[in-house]
Amino acid sequence: MEATAQEVDQAVRAAHAARGALADRAVRAAFLRTAADVLDGAKDQLVEAADAETALGPARLTGELARTTYQLRAFADVVDEGEFLGVVINHPDATATPPIPDLRRYKVPLGVIAVYSASNFPFAFSVAGGDTASALAAGCPVVVKAHPDHPALSELVAALLRRAAEQHGVPAGVVGLVHGFQAGVELVTHPLVAGAGFTGSVRGGRALFDAAAARPVPIPFHGELGSLNPVVVTESAAAERAEQIGAGLAGSMTLGVGQFCVKPGLVLAPSGAGGDRLVKALTDAVSDTEAGVLLDHRMRDNFVAGVAERAALPGVEAPVTPGAGGEHTVSAGFLTVPAARLAEPGAHDLLLEECFGPVTVLARYEDDAEAAAVLSRLPGNLTATVHLSAGEAAGEDGRGAELLAELTPLAGRVLVDGWPTGVAVAPAQHHGGPYPATTSTSTSVGATAIERWLRPVTYQGTPEALLPPELRDDNPLGLPRRFDGRLER
Amino acid sequence: MEATAQEVDQAVRAAHAARGALADRAVRAAFLRTAADVLDGAKDQLVEAADAETALGPARLTGELARTTYQLRAFADVVDEGEFLGVVINHPDATATPPIPDLRRYKVPLGVIAVYSASNFPFAFSVAGGDTASALAAGCPVVVKAHPDHPALSELVAALLRRAAEQHGVPAGVVGLVHGFQAGVELVTHPLVAGAGFTGSVRGGRALFDAAAARPVPIPFHGELGSLNPVVVTESAAAERAEQIGAGLAGSMTLGVGQFCVKPGLVLAPSGAGGDRLVKALTDAVSDTEAGVLLDHRMRDNFVAGVAERAALPGVEAPVTPGAGGEHTVSAGFLTVPAARLAEPGAHDLLLEECFGPVTVLARYEDDAEAAAVLSRLPGNLTATVHLSAGEAAGEDGRGAELLAELTPLAGRVLVDGWPTGVAVAPAQHHGGPYPATTSTSTSVGATAIERWLRPVTYQGTPEALLPPELRDDNPLGLPRRFDGRLER
Repeated sequence: MEATAQEVDQAVRAAHAARGALADRAVRAAFLRTAADVLDGAKDQLVEAADAETALGPARLTGELARTTYQLRAFADVVDEGEFLGVVINHPDATATPPIPDLRRYKVPLGVIAVYSASNFPFAFSVAGGDTASALAAGCPVVVKAHPDHPALSELVAALLRRAAEQHGVPAGVVGLVHGFQAGVELVTHPLVAGAGFTGSVRGGRALFDAAAARPVPIPFHGELGSLNPVVVTESAAAERAEQIGAGLAGSMTLGVGQFCVKPGLVLAPSGAGGDRLVKALTDAVSDTEAGVLLDHRMRDNFVAGVAERAALPGVEAPVTPGAGGEHTVSAGFLTVPAARLAEPGAHDLLLEECFGPVTVLARYEDDAEAAAVLSRLPGNLTATVHLSAGEAAGEDGRGAELLAELTPLAGRVLVDGWPTGVAVAPAQHHGGPYPATTSTSTSVGATAIERWLRPVTYQGTPEALLPPELRDDNPLGLPRRFDGRLER
Repeated sequence: MEATAQEVDQAVRAAHAARGALADRAVRAAFLRTAADVLDGAKDQLVEAADAETALGPARLTGELARTTYQLRAFADVVDEGEFLGVVINHPDATATPPIPDLRRYKVPLGVIAVYSASNFPFAFSVAGGDTASALAAGCPVVVKAHPDHPALSELVAALLRRAAEQHGVPAGVVGLVHGFQAGVELVTHPLVAGAGFTGSVRGGRALFDAAAARPVPIPFHGELGSLNPVVVTESAAAERAEQIGAGLAGSMTLGVGQFCVKPGLVLAPSGAGGDRLVKALTDAVSDTEAGVLLDHRMRDNFVAGVAERAALPGVEAPVTPGAGGEHTVSAGFLTVPAARLAEPGAHDLLLEECFGPVTVLARYEDDAEAAAVLSRLPGNLTATVHLSAGEAAGEDGRGAELLAELTPLAGRVLVDGWPTGVAVAPAQHHGGPYPATTSTSTSVGATAIERWLRPVTYQGTPEALLPPELRDDNPLGLPRRFDGRLER
């Protein structure tokens, strides 16, 4: 099943040959909508195929497929509106220094994009997921490297996408699919591949990032790698509603057996009575959680070993011990540690690394300075969350604003009084963050994800007859644009 | 004079400590305008200092300084308008899949930016140049690595920028300055440096790009490296106005002694009578050009050797031999070669590499297919230019559109009937292109250059009292934004 170098080359060349068929935005939008319809129409078959290869279960898989087709349609809307083209027009201005000639800028597709599927989202971050949807929306063909956890599903989804493409005269090669580790390496180093999107581990993502950067012609590599997703609970918030916070945390950290990239992995909880109540509430809620199956055996082994290594550190306690559940399952749990242990470099730095699965670490802090010291040591994150008291949320004593200022440098999404799991597909979404959360400043979810696959081109002194319609004065396509300095919408 | 690792560290820490003072956009805009005023006020001193260290001459230097202060003011306007913040607001939407919570996105500064100065623009691409102006506009302090060709001028400009900063309560450390090759390497690998801008050679830029990518935490490296800037002259255009095109080409390729990154370095000219007339016109015009001084001795050596190596290739002729002029000067010239020599890989590939200085290569093509074959072999470029006949420009026979389609993949700026030298500072400008023109998809000139130094952050479920004013429903700052899907300007 693993693709040879020759097969990767064929897939990339077929994708490259299909790029002209995506040049028309109307075709792209129609293709994306048909793709959504075709996938929705095959729902039963798709969920069954996904369920056969994963332990995620029909309910979750049905929801994830709905998210995936919603996303395809959302990108069709983005294509229709055309703001992503970034049209800017300047007529000549002899008063500028130096003088400005006739300049007209918009964005064009990069070329073939390599997409690396995730294990934990067989639909939403795989063959028809956000990277593929945003690349096709940008006018870029894709070659997807299937995740080994769901190869047959990957083939099925690719076949459906191709069927949708052909309904609009787009060659089937517009969505390529290859299997195998080595094929993934061949893909990112192929001369005709112009960019890459990745969702997975820090180790795998960094290796591919390095390969992309080391090419004779480097290419952009937009990888979502790993994230601890810190949560801060203020003393006042714990005093006010420790039980509610504990229950919410349990729900978020065990959702999907803890296998979300935005699972809260470190919680700064106050010492003292409020924090104790939070520990108690979390203990009760997590103890009630049923054991679950992880995505594959490698992840189960990593989880069990990772938890054991962390639990063995001095000062670490396990009010509910996470670990091997049954023969194939794992049980959720959490660890506690004095925050002082994390304020300086040392063996406890392991607690500042993501542990994929249903576990979180509660670091109990003595005062705000100690919490700040731990925050200042964190690597980049997809999310950072704070739970405030009603008074703090109302801005009464400045502590809320102070915490937001401390959390903003750490993450791409900052939440107040919420939980990071559940990543909405929305124009204002940002799913990315300082490294290792992502390898670039981009997002992999939401409308602006399309920006990853485009580059600007400016036409100078080009006669009206030769200009693309997007750049004509009379704006025949009705695009939002900047016209001689004025924003037109 | 060369900075030690400790001095680099001090400069970066001072810059990092100054970042808070740039948080207020009004302060940034005022600082940029004062910087422009202070530099304009010191015009005589600055031009004298630059003239003492370079051979560019007062006229060119005066013009370049005016461009530089125009650019600082243009970025102040960009800061005031605030579209670059990319504000997107979504109110909760329970009908979405999955449901959308309250999400509010805008962009925040990356942090300290390392700026690498260019030799050929001591003002416009150096200490107070486009990288610095756009970084400060984004809210990022800078540490500039001075170019060894103009160290004293660099100190003078940095001192003036710091004076402007202090007038607005911004610490002087907001503009750091270091000298020395090793200091440049220390800078790009410093943990507190969050991004880099570079203008220079492919070799130097690639080494720094590689260092930026190899960091434990990789950072964006926006480098402008090298460009051949191809020009295509159609047979009809040559027939119509060979003399005019030849004179224009001579002016562009010899401007500034051929030391512009957008100098046309390869011209596809037709064989036959029209092309012969073009050669004749170019011969006449270039023969009339006075010898000039290159930026430094290393560049002079490289130019003389590079021309000799190219001229020695089989089939290459030199109607006007470029080379050593007087003891310190070089003389302009050009080479011709049958385009067929460039259509396949071989020794003539040297002619497809940039040769910095007043030389260009005319490749004479037999037919459109031969020209297309050469174009398909070119590396990425900042610019690509076509000269069309009046009929072709009017879209009469499709050849104009065909050529634009061939040139667009090659460059970030495509010109019709113009010359690439003279890079206007304008919102619609794009000064960048496929590698090695630039190491990213960004521009280093024009309003959108600010995008390089920002990253998005989304706030979820954040109470009004804690939101930055940029993200409030009532839009107290009057920012252009996307509000529940609607573009507001």
